[in-house]
Amino acid sequence: VTAAYSIGLDIGATKILGCVVDSAGRIIRQETVPTPLTDTASIEDALVEVTRSLLAHHVVEAVGVAVAGWVDKTRRSVLFSAHLPWRSEPLADRLSARLDLPVVLENDANAATWAEFQFGAGKPFRDFVVVTVGSGIGAGIIAGGQLLRGAHGLAGELGHAVVDPEGPECPCGRRGCLDSLASGRALQRRFQMLRAAALVADGESSLLDGNHMPGAAIAAAARSGDPLALQAFADVGRALGRGIADLVMYLDPAAVILGGGVAAAGELLRVPTDASLRQCLGTRNRSARTHILISPLSAVAGAIGAAHLASTHHQASDLHPA
Amino acid sequence: VTAAYSIGLDIGATKILGCVVDSAGRIIRQETVPTPLTDTASIEDALVEVTRSLLAHHVVEAVGVAVAGWVDKTRRSVLFSAHLPWRSEPLADRLSARLDLPVVLENDANAATWAEFQFGAGKPFRDFVVVTVGSGIGAGIIAGGQLLRGAHGLAGELGHAVVDPEGPECPCGRRGCLDSLASGRALQRRFQMLRAAALVADGESSLLDGNHMPGAAIAAAARSGDPLALQAFADVGRALGRGIADLVMYLDPAAVILGGGVAAAGELLRVPTDASLRQCLGTRNRSARTHILISPLSAVAGAIGAAHLASTHHQASDLHPA
Repeated sequence: VTAAYSIGLDIGATKILGCVVDSAGRIIRQETVPTPLTDTASIEDALVEVTRSLLAHHVVEAVGVAVAGWVDKTRRSVLFSAHLPWRSEPLADRLSARLDLPVVLENDANAATWAEFQFGAGKPFRDFVVVTVGSGIGAGIIAGGQLLRGAHGLAGELGHAVVDPEGPECPCGRRGCLDSLASGRALQRRFQMLRAAALVADGESSLLDGNHMPGAAIAAAARSGDPLALQAFADVGRALGRGIADLVMYLDPAAVILGGGVAAAGELLRVPTDASLRQCLGTRNRSARTHILISPLSAVAGAIGAAHLASTHHQASDLHPA
Repeated sequence: VTAAYSIGLDIGATKILGCVVDSAGRIIRQETVPTPLTDTASIEDALVEVTRSLLAHHVVEAVGVAVAGWVDKTRRSVLFSAHLPWRSEPLADRLSARLDLPVVLENDANAATWAEFQFGAGKPFRDFVVVTVGSGIGAGIIAGGQLLRGAHGLAGELGHAVVDPEGPECPCGRRGCLDSLASGRALQRRFQMLRAAALVADGESSLLDGNHMPGAAIAAAARSGDPLALQAFADVGRALGRGIADLVMYLDPAAVILGGGVAAAGELLRVPTDASLRQCLGTRNRSARTHILISPLSAVAGAIGAAHLASTHHQASDLHPA
């Protein structure tokens, strides 16, 4: 009897995370390599490199890849990604041929949602949503105990819901998308804007540096009581709650779990998001309460979920026929 | 062997429709009584009256009731209705005791969605949405071949999604809800407003009567080429497409089926809704196409769906544990 290990890969904007994961969702080993920003071949090479490095230490039965983009219903191809150069790329078959292992793909927010369902904050629920707040915003949906993938595998696109039609322009062509008001990038922009306004008001505009402070530093400033950092989290949380409100009315989840890098700020993000959601939902709360929770898995949820989906893909295929 | 008939009741704003339905979803007999607008006891009496009248002709195994309101997860109680006086009313048990038959409740949009899935335009799909455009707007969701009911049974609330934050005030407290821009009432208001503006422009404001023309009459006017009636459908369709766009991004359905009274206008509603949806979704259509269809069941879908849910409730309970 061999231990049932699988590998989960999560392709982030700056780095690729590779994890060997056991059947209980525990990470046995993890490595990262920088994400090549050049061409599809370089990213594929990096995925193979980190996987082979992990395979030098462990025997695994399958590889799952979490992708920031649209994965087709059969989990074999990347249809489109805003940040990666793939267009209808048969990535699973290409990796499988090079690694001589079964490979499945899944959208990163869906993979993280699956991890929360199996091992994280979603375990008690059959109906919940995971909203990943990283450099962009994604969502995954568990409905009736199943991952809701939709007719083409594209369900859970939350980032480009319009929260404020008068809001900032988004590269997608709309204005005031949730992505442009409540993502990690939006938090950085909001904090810098508040700081610039304060420096100008104090006659200290010479101190303006034009650089965005990383989200973790804004969270640290907020924890030490910086009023502008607290305000930035309040503003982002208000927009996030408004975007989540529509999703809650459509899906009636028992909980919304906040994951991704920005959710590592914990209560700083959860409290204003929750208050905004309550306000939007109004009297509905008397009949049905949706709880806002913070993911315990956070940055590794995508890799764990992809690994678990890969290891159970035959069963998963039975549950979710294409 | 007895024929497997069941009764479906649909409580509308003006009338209660009662149907005896066979196991293939065909209506064997139907009757209507006016909806009492006074108190809960009178509505309950009317439901019993129409059911007993149908029972005088047919033996049935169960009764399903489609309710314009929130039905709890167990399908026993009406939690809330905007138009009916029930608040946490154990309607199923009360009717069951009086009729000596099993009774189940379901939200009217969910019941209509179930009918489309079993017998209507949803038969070819495992992932689709029904948007009912009547005096108000409701939605029902089939995801992965199951009715998506949510954690508390309240999934599918589409009417109060905000489409235009600068739009008209809604009784729900928000502005520019889909309900206030794309329902049957919104169509009537829009047509009257366009007509009033045209009469004033022509110096014929003395002809203003202040009465809303029924939706069917506006549809007839549009079919005979009335430019204002065509414009009213174009405006309602544009708002409807915008509201549906978010739902499509979240759920990725293969189709959105338009039902309810206003959808009886067919292409008059479908064409502008489809054009608006395409515009909102932009390049997404290259990867995934969501079709807009018109319900073939229309006004009787709620009653047929409620009847079928009642007849198969034990199996349905297995599929959708509370």
